[in-house]
Amino acid sequence: MNERTTWDTLVVGGTVLTMEPECEPIPNGAVAVSDGRIAAVGPCEQLLEQAPTCEVLEATDSLILPGFVNTHSHLAMTLVRGYADDLPLKEWLEKRIWPVERQHMNRDTVRLGTELAIAEQLLAGITTTTDMYFFGDEVAAALETVGMRGMVTEPLIDFPTPRCATPEEAMDKQRELIEAYRDNPLIFPSIAAHSPYSVCAANLVKEAELAEEYDVPLQIHLSETRWEVDQLISEKGSSPIAYLADLGVLGERTIAAHCVHVSPADIEILAANEVGVSHNPISNLKLASGVSPAATMIEAGVKLGLGTDGTASNNTLDLLRDAQLMTLLQKVITGNATALPARTAIEIITRLGAHVLGLEDRVGTLSPGLEADLICISTKGAHATPIYDPFSHLAFAARSADVRHVLVAGKLLVRDRTMQTMDLESIQARTKEFATSLAG
Amino acid sequence: MNERTTWDTLVVGGTVLTMEPECEPIPNGAVAVSDGRIAAVGPCEQLLEQAPTCEVLEATDSLILPGFVNTHSHLAMTLVRGYADDLPLKEWLEKRIWPVERQHMNRDTVRLGTELAIAEQLLAGITTTTDMYFFGDEVAAALETVGMRGMVTEPLIDFPTPRCATPEEAMDKQRELIEAYRDNPLIFPSIAAHSPYSVCAANLVKEAELAEEYDVPLQIHLSETRWEVDQLISEKGSSPIAYLADLGVLGERTIAAHCVHVSPADIEILAANEVGVSHNPISNLKLASGVSPAATMIEAGVKLGLGTDGTASNNTLDLLRDAQLMTLLQKVITGNATALPARTAIEIITRLGAHVLGLEDRVGTLSPGLEADLICISTKGAHATPIYDPFSHLAFAARSADVRHVLVAGKLLVRDRTMQTMDLESIQARTKEFATSLAG
Repeated sequence: MNERTTWDTLVVGGTVLTMEPECEPIPNGAVAVSDGRIAAVGPCEQLLEQAPTCEVLEATDSLILPGFVNTHSHLAMTLVRGYADDLPLKEWLEKRIWPVERQHMNRDTVRLGTELAIAEQLLAGITTTTDMYFFGDEVAAALETVGMRGMVTEPLIDFPTPRCATPEEAMDKQRELIEAYRDNPLIFPSIAAHSPYSVCAANLVKEAELAEEYDVPLQIHLSETRWEVDQLISEKGSSPIAYLADLGVLGERTIAAHCVHVSPADIEILAANEVGVSHNPISNLKLASGVSPAATMIEAGVKLGLGTDGTASNNTLDLLRDAQLMTLLQKVITGNATALPARTAIEIITRLGAHVLGLEDRVGTLSPGLEADLICISTKGAHATPIYDPFSHLAFAARSADVRHVLVAGKLLVRDRTMQTMDLESIQARTKEFATSLAG
Repeated sequence: MNERTTWDTLVVGGTVLTMEPECEPIPNGAVAVSDGRIAAVGPCEQLLEQAPTCEVLEATDSLILPGFVNTHSHLAMTLVRGYADDLPLKEWLEKRIWPVERQHMNRDTVRLGTELAIAEQLLAGITTTTDMYFFGDEVAAALETVGMRGMVTEPLIDFPTPRCATPEEAMDKQRELIEAYRDNPLIFPSIAAHSPYSVCAANLVKEAELAEEYDVPLQIHLSETRWEVDQLISEKGSSPIAYLADLGVLGERTIAAHCVHVSPADIEILAANEVGVSHNPISNLKLASGVSPAATMIEAGVKLGLGTDGTASNNTLDLLRDAQLMTLLQKVITGNATALPARTAIEIITRLGAHVLGLEDRVGTLSPGLEADLICISTKGAHATPIYDPFSHLAFAARSADVRHVLVAGKLLVRDRTMQTMDLESIQARTKEFATSLAG
């Protein structure tokens, strides 16, 4: 190894977790970044020898790992964080959320709320996000401007939205978004049909066909509440999952958010069709929807990632918090303290989340050739002392506030807990103005 | 109000939540501290006028509220944080926790682990804690040295502990602790019998008598696991709670930790005897013990506080995290999104927690005359934008890492997230040495 190498950045000094299957932690390790991609991973000393003049990002007393992958959210809803808490789902939607969306959600406010969501997520170590909200082109522009990676769409539902008067208009906007971003390295356009209870069979099928035509993911809310399952069984004679399978809508491109109320037969369908499930535990608790049998689905071979959902039902975009809650919850619902252990929880918010989005060849591990999306998590806190196992630490004790540095595509977006490519204070000031006018 | 006042400190500029029943938030408020007690609470302008020369602690962009009250923990177990995760209770105890305690827990290591726990808790906004671990006199000394408020004991169990060869020796140590600290304003000695399954009836009764004799609380683990309940029913013919009630052990002095597996009859007994329950939701999930019906107990009139339990089963001493999980969990187990709402969750970790410890006349609200235990929580983060309601913010979005300043008895123990009365780095270095020797 005497050949001199040119790298853009060398992240050095922390314990590296590549999150590749069976990876061993690399103490005092380093990650080399070149042209926005992972160039090399190894012991610090060895990599420093290879490229002595490289720009160095210091990450001692840190864990260095892939950025987290958020597989379900409604980003702009940061604007209504905490506006409607401790309410039943029906009242929450009909008296609070929908009226606000009709009256206050437009291109400008969606941009504002999305920018706040981008900052919050990056500061919490999320480097790839998934949005299902209106004005998808504005969401895409916001992500691209800051430099965050994300999946965008223009959701279709069988009634007028703040953006589209008709489902046909939503399909047109989806096509436009796909045409505009299909080759973009940061922005991944997708199809999104709201749910089996709010989109008719004909439109569900059309959406699946669009996803196939363009080879992009299809986002959908699925089996979130008991009500939805009862409704579909009563109207269609089968569970929401069986109904979609019968329509030919489910497949490896599907990203199904929630899947709380699923039968063994449903789980078989999800596994057989290679559907990606986005598990959203905090949202499901807060709206009293239920607890998804995530550990059982994983055992049955279902691809499973984790989502924050929107801040109206969470109330943060803090995926690590969801991961910690997920492992705790799965232990109690299975009655088995070994269920969904620490390492699996962290795989779910990195490599396995990327798999759900169909991005496993781009992000989710620190493997040479993949995009350089990585985070450094400080281990200096009292709560981070001692650490016997870094996976246990992440799954049971670490906090998103410990995230120090964040790189996306090799670009430093967060340094020492501070946004580098965005004026966060100005966004916060404008958000407070919005909140004042809404509350007043 | 033209009379000039002499106060020691004036905390100014944040939104004050006194946590008195029905309190309204005071925007741009202030809290005056004199002789270690709350002297006045009100609008900032008004209090500044009364005492213009007072030392001022700036707390703009913050919430100012009483410090949190942790009603159950085993502090020194910070040393084994993350040492035994994802294990069933039996293996966790028998193969990991007990061997470590026998071999490694002595006066020095208990002091070290307790000091780390004190720092972790103060930095997370906890100002009053409760310990149930060995070497209670060392725990008391550690708390007093740093300036933290806490309940201490020397737990009794029917087999040898790292401290006591016999239950009689534990009772002697309990008496000594009570004699030494009964009039101390920071340290509250208590009796502690481990549990109804590990302490014989005769010793349980003796412990209750000791608590009565000295008028101090009696800590006990109660109805934590299904196994414990089945065991007691099989051996004694009644549930653990009914068994203790029959022995005359339960009363207003009792602090019963866990109470996960409780029947309606058990809940009636707890309410009728004015037992204080310490709910420990994260520990109960992590060990797959179950979910305590906390909301149902509160409705039945049971006094309920919140505990972190030890870090071996949590893995942090972050009571706000437990509070946030509590409200989410109670919604899903009751199937009611309005269950245990935000404000109640924050009352439970302040005023109601103090009530469980019998300290409601000293701490838990910012009421003039009470001890000046208060915390300032920053609202500057992206995740803290916007805030429509400060209780919702605390219960669903805030993080313990947002805690900026912490005062106990009017003394500033944490300033700008930094310990003021302890060399935390040295404690962390020694903890890492302990962990290295244990793992190696």
